[in-house]
Amino acid sequence: MSEPIDFYYDFSSPYGYFMAEKIDALAAAHGRSVRWRPFLLGAVYKVTGDVPLPSKPLKGDYARRDFERSARFLGLTCRIPDPFPIGTQTAARAFYWLEAQDADRARRFALETFRAYFGDNRDISQPEVVLDIAAALGADRNALQAALGEDTLKVRLRAECDAAIARGVFGSPFVIIDGEPFWGVDRLPQIERWLETGGF
Amino acid sequence: MSEPIDFYYDFSSPYGYFMAEKIDALAAAHGRSVRWRPFLLGAVYKVTGDVPLPSKPLKGDYARRDFERSARFLGLTCRIPDPFPIGTQTAARAFYWLEAQDADRARRFALETFRAYFGDNRDISQPEVVLDIAAALGADRNALQAALGEDTLKVRLRAECDAAIARGVFGSPFVIIDGEPFWGVDRLPQIERWLETGGF
Repeated sequence: MSEPIDFYYDFSSPYGYFMAEKIDALAAAHGRSVRWRPFLLGAVYKVTGDVPLPSKPLKGDYARRDFERSARFLGLTCRIPDPFPIGTQTAARAFYWLEAQDADRARRFALETFRAYFGDNRDISQPEVVLDIAAALGADRNALQAALGEDTLKVRLRAECDAAIARGVFGSPFVIIDGEPFWGVDRLPQIERWLETGGF
Repeated sequence: MSEPIDFYYDFSSPYGYFMAEKIDALAAAHGRSVRWRPFLLGAVYKVTGDVPLPSKPLKGDYARRDFERSARFLGLTCRIPDPFPIGTQTAARAFYWLEAQDADRARRFALETFRAYFGDNRDISQPEVVLDIAAALGADRNALQAALGEDTLKVRLRAECDAAIARGVFGSPFVIIDGEPFWGVDRLPQIERWLETGGF
């Protein structure tokens, strides 16, 4: 059995959302599973000196157009939410809490959280919204709410961000297959060929 | 007859090189011509505050790997030259001098210059190399050498860079089709669909 594919993303990343809609099916078609790994772009940017895409001169305006065009190209819908971008530490911490109990529920939570933000314009930086999404999937809302207030989860997410940076993750989405890194949803064709051929 | 497609690139950009190998044939397959427009990434970075990709933390290491993998994916070969990146003002100025005489020769010069750098590791920042490439295509070497020393061409290239920035060009390659901007060789599938469908 091959190692799982690692899928790194920030919940505020449109391209991360598009990859989230695609990666499981693509991996499954090649007999592979996916390990979902939310992280915080803000933590990475502290290391790289980068800034959020929407605030970059020229590139920011292009990106807003490209988000929506890339969604159409991939057969998805995406409205740039307001506010955008947002802090995603609550959603990411909730993911790791859910994953410790049930990895499949955590993955469904991640996808629902992305869809809530980029499809329904719900502000997933708000703990209430995160709790609602988790509870709708059968998670214990009160237990999750309590956990989100404790240090354990904060330390866990920080460790995940550090581990991502140590592996060279600098953007979202970032996919690692058997050590080979792929940045961006526009690398999907290369990922597909890599899975088909075992490397090229 | 449709307007030509505008293709902006810096001669030191590997992804620009890959696009140079692809864009004419793709455009021609849809009855379109291409207007090649070399510019200087350095001039753009003064506006955007960006820095050359290879010197970015984490992203630079990834990029070197991605250059060569993307080349293989596209059926091209690319060895990262040494030195890399380099200044490309001489090559860009020569292009505009050649274009004023013969647009087709200028395009062949551009492609040969890219291939000299990314295929044969020739240092195209050196005027002698640029003159050799132009002369091999039948251009008047002495006249080009003289023109490269005059202000007219310097002013021309500066104006081209300003015009590119005014159109929102912030990276290489950058393709504009009927007002729609596409950044990166990884947008080739979107460009192809755009040409097929007239927009999506």
